[in-house]
Amino acid sequence: MSLENRLTRLFGIRHPLVQAGMAGGATTPRLVAAVSEAGGLGTLGAGYLQPRAIREAVQEVRILTRAPFAVNLFVPEAFEEPVSREAADALLAPYRGELSIDEPEVSSYAPDFEEQLAVVIEERVPVFSFTFGVPSDERLAALREAGVVTCGTATTVREAAELERRGVDSVCAQGYEAGGHRGTFTGDALEAMVGTFALVPQVADSMETPVIAAGGVMDGRGLAAALALGADGAQMGTAFLTSAESGAHPAYKRALLAATDEDTTVTRAFSGKPARGLRNRFTREMAPHEAGLPDYPVQNAYTRDLRAAAASRGDPDLMSLWAGQASGMSRELPAAEIVERTVEQALRARGGPREG
Amino acid sequence: MSLENRLTRLFGIRHPLVQAGMAGGATTPRLVAAVSEAGGLGTLGAGYLQPRAIREAVQEVRILTRAPFAVNLFVPEAFEEPVSREAADALLAPYRGELSIDEPEVSSYAPDFEEQLAVVIEERVPVFSFTFGVPSDERLAALREAGVVTCGTATTVREAAELERRGVDSVCAQGYEAGGHRGTFTGDALEAMVGTFALVPQVADSMETPVIAAGGVMDGRGLAAALALGADGAQMGTAFLTSAESGAHPAYKRALLAATDEDTTVTRAFSGKPARGLRNRFTREMAPHEAGLPDYPVQNAYTRDLRAAAASRGDPDLMSLWAGQASGMSRELPAAEIVERTVEQALRARGGPREG
Repeated sequence: MSLENRLTRLFGIRHPLVQAGMAGGATTPRLVAAVSEAGGLGTLGAGYLQPRAIREAVQEVRILTRAPFAVNLFVPEAFEEPVSREAADALLAPYRGELSIDEPEVSSYAPDFEEQLAVVIEERVPVFSFTFGVPSDERLAALREAGVVTCGTATTVREAAELERRGVDSVCAQGYEAGGHRGTFTGDALEAMVGTFALVPQVADSMETPVIAAGGVMDGRGLAAALALGADGAQMGTAFLTSAESGAHPAYKRALLAATDEDTTVTRAFSGKPARGLRNRFTREMAPHEAGLPDYPVQNAYTRDLRAAAASRGDPDLMSLWAGQASGMSRELPAAEIVERTVEQALRARGGPREG
Repeated sequence: MSLENRLTRLFGIRHPLVQAGMAGGATTPRLVAAVSEAGGLGTLGAGYLQPRAIREAVQEVRILTRAPFAVNLFVPEAFEEPVSREAADALLAPYRGELSIDEPEVSSYAPDFEEQLAVVIEERVPVFSFTFGVPSDERLAALREAGVVTCGTATTVREAAELERRGVDSVCAQGYEAGGHRGTFTGDALEAMVGTFALVPQVADSMETPVIAAGGVMDGRGLAAALALGADGAQMGTAFLTSAESGAHPAYKRALLAATDEDTTVTRAFSGKPARGLRNRFTREMAPHEAGLPDYPVQNAYTRDLRAAAASRGDPDLMSLWAGQASGMSRELPAAEIVERTVEQALRARGGPREG
């Protein structure tokens, strides 16, 4: 038995299972390669990487596997640059004090997207996935010409339709449960929080493009459910954060392994963009100030040093602990075993309901 | 082929499909009977009904079908009685003015739960489902003695555990996508909004009691997905609101049939308790005042006449339009056909992924 379908054929993979492109260091070349080697689609979360680092990571993945893999980037969007840093710095000052760090000099808010994308095209990365928007028609054409298969992120039926209209090859339907940043690019991200169970069939019904369900998928039951709902495959992020190959900080992994279904929240505190993660001291204390924080990527640049300092101290209370609502199902396993168990369990789960 | 399992045996039904007990008039005896007669579990949403009306409806259902059915009630919870109605009335005054109604005299906020429950026990209703809390041990014992099977509502793993500990026979796991009132009874309802996809497997993993998945289920794909995630059955509410037998107002049905995935919100404006429904003028205009509104059931009693007057005018902008996030999949069909199609599609959906 196998779950091969039009999505596995599109990506050239064996199982309709994608490892999410989580930016911030978790998606090491080892993790990406392990997932792809096991028959899924590993993804390098390269949103925060400089072009040279992306090239190096891609080359490292290719040393480890000949299987297809993906690189995920953040499509830049319009943002308001604050007139002054004063208000934002005032809120962050107590934490910087505790961590004995100064206000950072911010020379750029984020790596240059065009330069990042140039590496993806030059390296002819098998799959390019993206979020926060849609690349220009010119860039999409360049990707197509280079033989790169594309996958966009949608949080609503409307966004999925826009991706299809623009000729994107596949759509990741990101449900409300998903960990990390909301991919919303039309309208208000906090209003566009449709649960995976409701989003997937509505997106699947609305278009011909293959759909990947994301948000709350942690095992084979989730993959089977995604397929039942009309998706062509499923994406798992949180499930791979606690894998042996993940680059997630040990304190972050411990927090995930201890999490319950009630432990996540959606916060703008770390980056300026709504993202789901485990509640900690920072999300709680910043909650009353959410509305006034700078936009992404400004706030993200302002908190970069703070997050790094907290990580180097191993203090999960000031780190961003991106996590989905099914973190309670996190397990410590090698990535290949996560892929294999998920596929085997999906094949079983499609067999029938639980008997008692 | 059949989906019979321990849940269908517990309820004495043919298909693991429950029609949600939606209070407010949609669940006519005809709807309840049609669902039960078709092999699902029809549910009379009796939360707002006086004891005598419950008895009459139950007897009417029994004339129409010999199949098992359920009655759903709201377990009363502690609430703060406002010192004065002034602030709440001031917010509602403009709407009352438009509708040419006076401030209502409020003699009681809600029907007496003990008297409602007495009818359920006296009538030996086959299944008693409840939300907003858990009945006392004494009442649960009385239900058991009368041969009434119980089903409690949980919005978190913690609440599900509490229901199991109290000996409740089955648990409805209500995901974030679900229409109508949040059933949360421990902690903050707005924090306990776990998506169905994440909630169901975590609840199923945490206990032995049969689990019914609710929230976002609109068709056989949803039923199949619920079973794949580890549930023993699924509950559909919104899907039955537009059925031929539903008592929902024609303007409400039209709004559901026109809805998209982005059209719902969670509001306290109508009842004082967070509930998901279609956005309309009332939810939008009341949004800035949410925090200061009276608790449930006080606000519910304050807006009762207003909602009734809006309904009698057919004005959906001032009616409560409870609806789940998958309302976009609403169809006008006889209830029996909804049950049959759902079961047939679930059997097919379990067969394999979509091919293209």
